[in-house]
Amino acid sequence: MPRQVDHDQRRAELAEALWRLASTRGIEAVSLREVAAEAGVSMGRVQHYFASKDDMLAFALELANERAGARIRARLAGDPGPERILREVLTEMLGLNAESRQFLLLGIAFLNRAITSEAIATRMSDGDAELRGFLASLVAAAVGERRGVDPDREARILIQLAAGLGVEVALGQTAPDEAVATVDYYLRRLLG
Amino acid sequence: MPRQVDHDQRRAELAEALWRLASTRGIEAVSLREVAAEAGVSMGRVQHYFASKDDMLAFALELANERAGARIRARLAGDPGPERILREVLTEMLGLNAESRQFLLLGIAFLNRAITSEAIATRMSDGDAELRGFLASLVAAAVGERRGVDPDREARILIQLAAGLGVEVALGQTAPDEAVATVDYYLRRLLG
Repeated sequence: MPRQVDHDQRRAELAEALWRLASTRGIEAVSLREVAAEAGVSMGRVQHYFASKDDMLAFALELANERAGARIRARLAGDPGPERILREVLTEMLGLNAESRQFLLLGIAFLNRAITSEAIATRMSDGDAELRGFLASLVAAAVGERRGVDPDREARILIQLAAGLGVEVALGQTAPDEAVATVDYYLRRLLG
Repeated sequence: MPRQVDHDQRRAELAEALWRLASTRGIEAVSLREVAAEAGVSMGRVQHYFASKDDMLAFALELANERAGARIRARLAGDPGPERILREVLTEMLGLNAESRQFLLLGIAFLNRAITSEAIATRMSDGDAELRGFLASLVAAAVGERRGVDPDREARILIQLAAGLGVEVALGQTAPDEAVATVDYYLRRLLG
């Protein structure tokens, strides 16, 4: 279905234009009109693909999320086991490469918009629940039935830890190797 | 020194006006002129007390931080010991009362501005280092020399955990009792 492929491709190109603009100026300052100019298309084309700026932001965030998933899968050849998957997912969240830093900065802007938009707050929350379920299943598989370990709580903690450190790395507040060492420390304590 | 008291008092009143406006509309949308109107003073007065919006934001965040400290000290009567202090500090970060929620929303807006302002990113980072040192000393006092526990790493983890959960509570994404239960779970695992 070439039409659908084309549609997704155009939307991805616009999202990429948004990322480029937002990475230097922040997302609040970027208008749909500027995204159109950056992508070399008309404002009408942009409006054909996105109903609003929030709609574009949501798509950009989901696309960044999908690509992060693809990067993780690419690094996990063979039969990696739950511990290695867990480590790869968390490491991807730490903003160690340009794309994941971009994703984190987008996430901050999104968080800021969630203050005034319940729709965005809910959307973020849904995405988080999905990741939490996935991490909880990995923790459960990795630690088994060890006494005192609650996989769902551990998943919540791991998300806050990796996302928070990732934001600090993306903003240049924490050194990448410090963030990695902190996640490693936590996993060592959790997995024994 | 009544003059200094007056100066601090006026700055606090302006910061409170900013909080009221920002809580419904987000901080990006609020101008210094609107803060002046909300506080019932002239734009000239505002400019007398603050050089820029970022200057006012930084003061508002520091004031919120001081007040959080005062609330914690008020709850800690007698000789509470490191474990209880640790629990109170982390609980205060969870956005369970209106003031601390306000503080968290301000923190998100600040984070968003840190994307485009290195000065703000550095300022946040300094505040974080101070809190980290304090939490690390509490962890060290509470767990002693237990093998495998690194107080500085634990402090980093606790900050990310409590701040991240607090943001979710402030945005209505996580229930307050869920956030408290997660912090309690972590402290139980850490302190035994």
